[in-house]
Amino acid sequence: MVKLKDIGELKFIKRIEGLIPSFRNKDVVVSLGDDCAVVKDGKSLILLSSDMSIENVHFLSDVFPPSAIGWKSMASAWSDIAGMGGEPCWALVSWSLPEYMTVHKAEAIFQGMLKATEFVNGTIIGGDTTASNDNIIIDVTVIGKPVNDRYITRSGAKEGDIIAVTGTLGNSAAGLVALKQGLPECGLWRSHWYPIPRVEEGKWLCETGSVNAMIDISDGLIVDAGHIAEMSQVGIKIHKQDIPASEELTNFCEKYNLNIDDFTLGGGEEYQLLVSIPQEKWEQISTEFNALFPCSITAIGQVTHDRQDVRVDGTIPQIKGYEHFV
Amino acid sequence: MVKLKDIGELKFIKRIEGLIPSFRNKDVVVSLGDDCAVVKDGKSLILLSSDMSIENVHFLSDVFPPSAIGWKSMASAWSDIAGMGGEPCWALVSWSLPEYMTVHKAEAIFQGMLKATEFVNGTIIGGDTTASNDNIIIDVTVIGKPVNDRYITRSGAKEGDIIAVTGTLGNSAAGLVALKQGLPECGLWRSHWYPIPRVEEGKWLCETGSVNAMIDISDGLIVDAGHIAEMSQVGIKIHKQDIPASEELTNFCEKYNLNIDDFTLGGGEEYQLLVSIPQEKWEQISTEFNALFPCSITAIGQVTHDRQDVRVDGTIPQIKGYEHFV
Repeated sequence: MVKLKDIGELKFIKRIEGLIPSFRNKDVVVSLGDDCAVVKDGKSLILLSSDMSIENVHFLSDVFPPSAIGWKSMASAWSDIAGMGGEPCWALVSWSLPEYMTVHKAEAIFQGMLKATEFVNGTIIGGDTTASNDNIIIDVTVIGKPVNDRYITRSGAKEGDIIAVTGTLGNSAAGLVALKQGLPECGLWRSHWYPIPRVEEGKWLCETGSVNAMIDISDGLIVDAGHIAEMSQVGIKIHKQDIPASEELTNFCEKYNLNIDDFTLGGGEEYQLLVSIPQEKWEQISTEFNALFPCSITAIGQVTHDRQDVRVDGTIPQIKGYEHFV
Repeated sequence: MVKLKDIGELKFIKRIEGLIPSFRNKDVVVSLGDDCAVVKDGKSLILLSSDMSIENVHFLSDVFPPSAIGWKSMASAWSDIAGMGGEPCWALVSWSLPEYMTVHKAEAIFQGMLKATEFVNGTIIGGDTTASNDNIIIDVTVIGKPVNDRYITRSGAKEGDIIAVTGTLGNSAAGLVALKQGLPECGLWRSHWYPIPRVEEGKWLCETGSVNAMIDISDGLIVDAGHIAEMSQVGIKIHKQDIPASEELTNFCEKYNLNIDDFTLGGGEEYQLLVSIPQEKWEQISTEFNALFPCSITAIGQVTHDRQDVRVDGTIPQIKGYEHFV
């Protein structure tokens, strides 16, 4: 019998999607395969997304302060709203905790969730609390609204577009390595613990009306660029030397003789935004963005006509991002 | 250090609720403490609820067909929409599966979710799929709409109201006992595996405009009557002899010398509706309901002025329902 680990997360999801009857319901505008689902409630649109975090799969509890467990699980969900350019509104928190956990620790986890929610100006309105067998399990569902009925999907990238990314890449993945190996790199630790959902940046990019495709980088640059390429039926070429990396990451890789590409190309959970912008709009958008937001935006490549390929300096990279089951 | 098992689920939830800053957001109409949260999207209202199911906490996978795992986890979530009298619309499914699970089994679980969703005329629009360490974890978020902007909370019960329940109670809990002990009671097994969310019944009751309070019975009659009593600041008296039980349950208890009260008063996961209806409306509502729905509705008690007590034949019952952590 074929097991989940034999086919991997992405193929399994495709099979499951195939089981769902095609939507007779006109109220479903965007369903599977994007950062959020989009549904129509009367005249207005709603963005919806869920994100599940499991102890020792998504976070290593030995090296996570409780508040970071809460922050990260919540921030990763809000980041899906950011990835569509939406306005965060409400969240439901379902969590399952071991009965021997202290009330103090459970409350600290929840405080982290509250902080991440306050950061994006959202509200926790409900959820479900249950006992688990052993592990901490957190599933967050977030609900947002598009600003002026506008949202950005993964599927609009066009040949010739500039591919750009907010902030720098790789700090979170490097932080995980530092934490696992007990290396005292506090800044990188914090990048891994407390990633920033780029909500204001996403909303602004959406409001320009000029961004063709967008995604939040949760599984790594190569994997998430691949999602844009697949959904847009295009290719993407990335120039490695243009990928923005922090000084801290560069120093860390030099100090410990690590390959920086593993972090910048393959490292996820950074929650930066990856966007596809028409060439003629790039200069204006990037100039205004960089004047407005401290995290800055950087061109790292272009959209090509090769279907669904992501190439780095001309070759298909061996570095993959994260996939469950395999 | 105080642990979760020292204070139990209900006290812990109260503490967590206390951490959430009071809602400055006018768009939150009903938040914590009811079957669903209710939010305002422009002029219309939305109902939202999450329900998490964990292997060997919420279901024993040894005695569950895969399709029943899916049906039950989904039906329990849709039942929260039923408990407010809402119309089911959309669902997000987050699930975490062991990598050694067969694809066949995972697909059968999902088929069960699809069937429960088709049953209520809803649509699965997204979610999250991840690997778990060991157990099956399913969290379903459901979104519904009130019919004509009307919904029923737990908090409107008034002294003198008739307390009534749809269908019969106790089959699901007895089914679990039969399954655990290998007793060949197929009908009771099915009640435990495939509970029916009372969506049409809930909508109809809501549309009468005459139901003061409603809840779906997920934790057992006593616990859920207690929720109405607490939220409505009233007491509830129940007449044991009036509680409807199936012939199958009666026979089962006689055959195996079991106390039927354990099942009818304490057994949850039946997803029948418990309602509080003004005395003067009872006759008309019950007559019409019983003409329309095969599951029937039965008066089992009354609302009293004693604050927050639930009494069965005059005494506070020793039988409790299910509470996590304790």
